Amino acid sequence: MHSTKNIFAKDYGILPNQSTDCTQAFYKMLTDHPENACFILDPGTYHFSSEEALRGDYYISNTDVENPRHLSILLKDMKNITIDGNGSLFLHKGQTIPFTVDHCDTVTLKNITIDWSIPLSAEGLIVDACKEWTDMKIDSDLFPHFIKENWLYFKGENWESPYGSFCQFDHTTKKVAYGTADLFQSSKQEQLEDGTIRFYGPFDPVPTPGNYGVLRHNRRLHPGIFLNQSSNLHLEHITIHNTGGLGILAQFCENLAFDHIRFEANRAAGRKVVSGHDDGLHLSNNRGEITVEHCSFYGLMDDPINVHGTTVKITEIVDTHTLKGIFVHYQAVGFDCWAEKGQTISFIDHLSMASRGTGTVNHFELLSPKEFIITFDTPVPNTFQVGDALENLTNSPSLICRNNYFGSCRARGVLVSTPKKVLIENNVFESAGSAILIAGDANFWYESGACSDVLIRGNHFADCCMTSMYQFCEGIISICPEIPKPELHKPFHRNIKITENTFQSFDYSVLYALSVQGLEFSHNRIIRSYVYEPMDRKHHMINLEYCSNVTLHDNHLIGDVLGQDVHTVGMEDHSILFK
Amino acid sequence: MHSTKNIFAKDYGILPNQSTDCTQAFYKMLTDHPENACFILDPGTYHFSSEEALRGDYYISNTDVENPRHLSILLKDMKNITIDGNGSLFLHKGQTIPFTVDHCDTVTLKNITIDWSIPLSAEGLIVDACKEWTDMKIDSDLFPHFIKENWLYFKGENWESPYGSFCQFDHTTKKVAYGTADLFQSSKQEQLEDGTIRFYGPFDPVPTPGNYGVLRHNRRLHPGIFLNQSSNLHLEHITIHNTGGLGILAQFCENLAFDHIRFEANRAAGRKVVSGHDDGLHLSNNRGEITVEHCSFYGLMDDPINVHGTTVKITEIVDTHTLKGIFVHYQAVGFDCWAEKGQTISFIDHLSMASRGTGTVNHFELLSPKEFIITFDTPVPNTFQVGDALENLTNSPSLICRNNYFGSCRARGVLVSTPKKVLIENNVFESAGSAILIAGDANFWYESGACSDVLIRGNHFADCCMTSMYQFCEGIISICPEIPKPELHKPFHRNIKITENTFQSFDYSVLYALSVQGLEFSHNRIIRSYVYEPMDRKHHMINLEYCSNVTLHDNHLIGDVLGQDVHTVGMEDHSILFK
Repeated sequence: MHSTKNIFAKDYGILPNQSTDCTQAFYKMLTDHPENACFILDPGTYHFSSEEALRGDYYISNTDVENPRHLSILLKDMKNITIDGNGSLFLHKGQTIPFTVDHCDTVTLKNITIDWSIPLSAEGLIVDACKEWTDMKIDSDLFPHFIKENWLYFKGENWESPYGSFCQFDHTTKKVAYGTADLFQSSKQEQLEDGTIRFYGPFDPVPTPGNYGVLRHNRRLHPGIFLNQSSNLHLEHITIHNTGGLGILAQFCENLAFDHIRFEANRAAGRKVVSGHDDGLHLSNNRGEITVEHCSFYGLMDDPINVHGTTVKITEIVDTHTLKGIFVHYQAVGFDCWAEKGQTISFIDHLSMASRGTGTVNHFELLSPKEFIITFDTPVPNTFQVGDALENLTNSPSLICRNNYFGSCRARGVLVSTPKKVLIENNVFESAGSAILIAGDANFWYESGACSDVLIRGNHFADCCMTSMYQFCEGIISICPEIPKPELHKPFHRNIKITENTFQSFDYSVLYALSVQGLEFSHNRIIRSYVYEPMDRKHHMINLEYCSNVTLHDNHLIGDVLGQDVHTVGMEDHSILFK
Repeated sequence: MHSTKNIFAKDYGILPNQSTDCTQAFYKMLTDHPENACFILDPGTYHFSSEEALRGDYYISNTDVENPRHLSILLKDMKNITIDGNGSLFLHKGQTIPFTVDHCDTVTLKNITIDWSIPLSAEGLIVDACKEWTDMKIDSDLFPHFIKENWLYFKGENWESPYGSFCQFDHTTKKVAYGTADLFQSSKQEQLEDGTIRFYGPFDPVPTPGNYGVLRHNRRLHPGIFLNQSSNLHLEHITIHNTGGLGILAQFCENLAFDHIRFEANRAAGRKVVSGHDDGLHLSNNRGEITVEHCSFYGLMDDPINVHGTTVKITEIVDTHTLKGIFVHYQAVGFDCWAEKGQTISFIDHLSMASRGTGTVNHFELLSPKEFIITFDTPVPNTFQVGDALENLTNSPSLICRNNYFGSCRARGVLVSTPKKVLIENNVFESAGSAILIAGDANFWYESGACSDVLIRGNHFADCCMTSMYQFCEGIISICPEIPKPELHKPFHRNIKITENTFQSFDYSVLYALSVQGLEFSHNRIIRSYVYEPMDRKHHMINLEYCSNVTLHDNHLIGDVLGQDVHTVGMEDHSILFK
C-alpha cells in the first residue's frame, strides 16, 4: 500500500456554507489526485446543482434509461481514496447523482449527509377523505407545487414533475398504514380555496385523516450514490435524506462494506417520512463480500436492501458454443460487462428454474443495449432451449447483514438471491410487507438467482410486518421464487436455516417456502399480536410447497398464535422431520 | 413416587356446561383424594360463586387484609396432585380466589381458563374529552353500572363497587397511551341522557377520544391463584381473563414453574384490554427455583412479574440475641412463617442498605399481625440499630424468566430483587414504564433485597418502553434501590450483566443503575425510534450513580441514538472500563 496524503478541500476553494456550486472544484481536486489521497472537508454545507453537474453515459441497474446522466462528484479510475466529509451536508438541486464511483479500487466515503434543498419526493397531511376524494395539505415551502390541467405538479429550482401516486403512513405508529397496501392512484387533482389539494379517487380503502401521504413523482433516473465496476468500497456514516432514484446502487463491483448508513427524512427541515424515491441499497451483479452493518432504513418508497443478479433470456442458439440473448427488464439493459472471459455461467431451465449445467465464458459482446451474443469454451447443454435463461455465477456476492434496523418503508425489508453465503443476523424488521424475501426468477423481473446457504438468526420481526400486501409477500419470511412448474426433486433454493428469531405476528403466515431443499425452522419464538386484524388468505403458520428435507423443532409459541400448524403442497410424507 | 390414579370429575357430579355451582363437589372430590391423584375434567364451563365459596383466613402478601377470604377451589395439605382442566373455563361470580394451594407438595394445575361472568374491572370507550371532563361509553351488559350520589358504581351478581380511577390504552397501538402515566382521577361522575358516563376532572393530559379507558374498582382482596407455603408447583397452560386482585400470588413456597400462563382480556366476550386488577405473577418470599416460560402478559393494571422478599423493620433491641420488629407495609403483614428456625437472616443498615452481617434464626413468633419477636443463635451485630431492617436470605429464590411476552400493562415489566441467580433471557418487552426494575428497599415498600447475580440477555425492548413514567422508572432497565445515603464502597447490588439485548429507544435513558458493584453492559443494540417524543428529564443514554467495576463495550448504536454518552454521579475515574 502506498502512503496516503491528506488533501484539504479548502485548498481547492471548497469552503463550507458558501452559496457557490462545488461541482467543478471537486472535479479539479479529484483529477489532481487520482491515487493515494484522503480528501478532507471542513464541516458545513456544500452545494451542487444538476445544471453544473458533469455528464456521463451509464446503464444503471433497475433505473430508467436516459443518457447522459448528471453527476455531481465523480470518482473515475481512482485508487486508494478516502473522502471524509467531517459531518458535512451535501445539498443538491435537481436531478443528479451526488456520488459516482466508477472503475475505482479501494475507496472510502464517510461522514457525509446527502440532501436536496427541494426534495424529489413530497409529503402531505391528509386532512379529509372519502371514497370519492382525499384532501391533503402540502407545505408549499417544503414541497413547491401547482395545478395545471387538473393535475398536480411539483417543482424545483430547475425542474417540474407531475404527481404519480401516494402511499399513507399512520400518524400514531409512524408506519405504513395498516391494510393500505400499495400506492393510491388518483384520477385528477385540484386546489381548493385554502390551498388544500384534492385528489379525486375512487379510493378503496379510504385514506385516514391525520395520516401522512407520501407523494411520489419524478422518474427513477439518478441514484443517491452510484458504484460501478469498482472494488473494495467502504461507505461509513452516510445519511441520505432524499434521492432521485435508488438510494445506493452498486453494480458489477467486488467487496462492498456499508456501515452506519442511514436513510431517514430530514426531520430538522420539517419533513416527516420520506427518505428516498425507491430502494435503499440496491446491489446488483456484484461479487466478493457485501457487509451491511448498523444501518437504519425508514421512509423509503421501496425495499431497503435488494441483493440480486440479472438473468438474461436466450433468443437464439447460434451454434453448439454460441447463444444470442436479451436483457428482458427495461430498467436493466446495456450491461457490456454482464459476462467476461473466464466467468462461470449457469444454464437455467426457465420452467423448473433448475440449472442444466454450467459453462465458462469465452466471449461476451453487446449487439445493442438490449441484445448480446455469448460464446462458451465448451458446448452448451443440448437440453438448453430458446426461452431458457443464463445466470452469471461469478457475479454473485456473499452477504452479511447484521445489526441493522429496517424501519417502515413501502414494500419489503431484505430481498436477497445469490448462490453465495448469506447471513442475516440480529436485525430488527418493521417492514410493511414481508421482512425477508428470497425470490429468484427468470420469467418476469429477471433478478436471479438460487440461494444455497442462508442463515437467518436472532432477528426480531415486529408485528407490523405483513400489514400491507406487496408482490411475493406470502409470509413474514417469504421464500417465493417464480417457478412456472415447480418439481419436488428439482429444488430451486437450498440450505436455508431460520433459527432463534422472534416473530410478533398478528396474522397466520410466519413462513412461506417454495422449492427449497434443506430448510430448518428451529428455536424461534412466535408471539401472538392483537394490534392488527388478520387478513391473510392463508390460515397456517408455516406454508411449504415443493420443499424437501425440512426440519421443524424447538419453536416457542407464546400466546394464542394463529394457525399453529404446517400446510404443505406437493410434498411427501418424509419431507418434514419434526424433532 | 407413588403411582397416581386418575379421578374423573364427572364421577363427582362435576359436569361441564351446567348452571350449578361446583364449589362443594370439588371440595368433596379433593378431600376424598388428598394424595397421588390426577383430577380430570371434561372440557366445558364450570361455575363458581363467591356465595358458595369456602372461607379461610389468610394473610396474603401485597393484598388488602380482610378475613375470612372466599376460596372456590382449595387444595390443602395435598401431595402429588394434578388438576387437568382439558381446556375448561372456570367462570366466577363475585369476590373469590379461584384456586388456593396451601401447604401442598407437588401440584400441577393445567389447561384451565379463569374468568368472571361480570369482570371485577371495567372498560369504556372514550368518546369525548376536554380538560374539565371525559365522556366514556361503557357497555352495560359487559360492565353493569349505575350512578349514585354523583359517583359511578359497578355491580355484579352479589356486589357493588365504587369506581376508583382509570387509565388509557391507545386505540391504534393497543398500548398504554403515550405520556398518560398513572391513573386518571375524577372528582365526580354523572350519566348523560344517552347513557354515556361523564367523568369530571380536571384532566391533564386530556384523554384522547377513541382510546379505551380501563376503569379500576374493587379492593385488592382475592388473587386469581393463591399459592401458600407449598413446594414443587407447576402451572401450565392457564389463561386468566380477570381477577379480583393479584393474578397469581405465591408466598413462602419452594420451586415454582409457570409455563404458558396467559393474562389477556377475554376478547371473544367483547372485552378489549383489561385482564387483571393488579400484578400478573406476584412471587413473594419464596425459595428454590422459579421458572417463568412462554408466558404472555397484556392489559394488567400493575407489574406482570414481581419477585421479591419482605424486609421487616426493627423497633426494639430486646437483648443481644433478640429483636422486636414490625411488618411495615399494610398489605404485607401477619406472616407467621416469615422466619423459621435455622433460616439465615441478613442485618441491613437502612441508610446505606448494606448488610451488617447475617444470623441464624432460633425462634420467630408473631405478637400481632403487625409485630413479631425474633431470637438468633448468635449475637446480633452491635452496629445494628432500631430503624434498621432484616431480610430473610433463605426465603429467596432463583429466577429463570425466558421466552415470555410482556405486552402493554400499567407500570413496569419484571421487578426482581433476590440474592439468588436471576436469568432474564429472550423476552419481548412492550412495557409502559421500565421493562426491568431491580429495586430493593427497606424504607418504603419493604420489598427486599439485594441482587448478586443477574444476567439480562437477548431480550427485545420495544419503543413503547418508558412512554409513561411510574415510580422508580429511570431507564428502560432501571436498577433503582431506595438508598437514603448511597456509598460507593458499600454497593447494594452486585454482578449485573446486560448483554446482547436490543433496545428501541425514543428517549435518552436506556440504563439507570444505582449502587451496583460489577455491572456489564455489552454487545447490546440501541436503535433510535421516532415514534414518540422524548420526555425524560435525563439526557444521557447510560446513567450511573455510585457504581463500581463497570464495563461498557461492543454496544451497537443504530441511527441517531439520543445522548450517546455515560453520566455518572458519585463515581471514581477508574469505576468504568471502556473496552
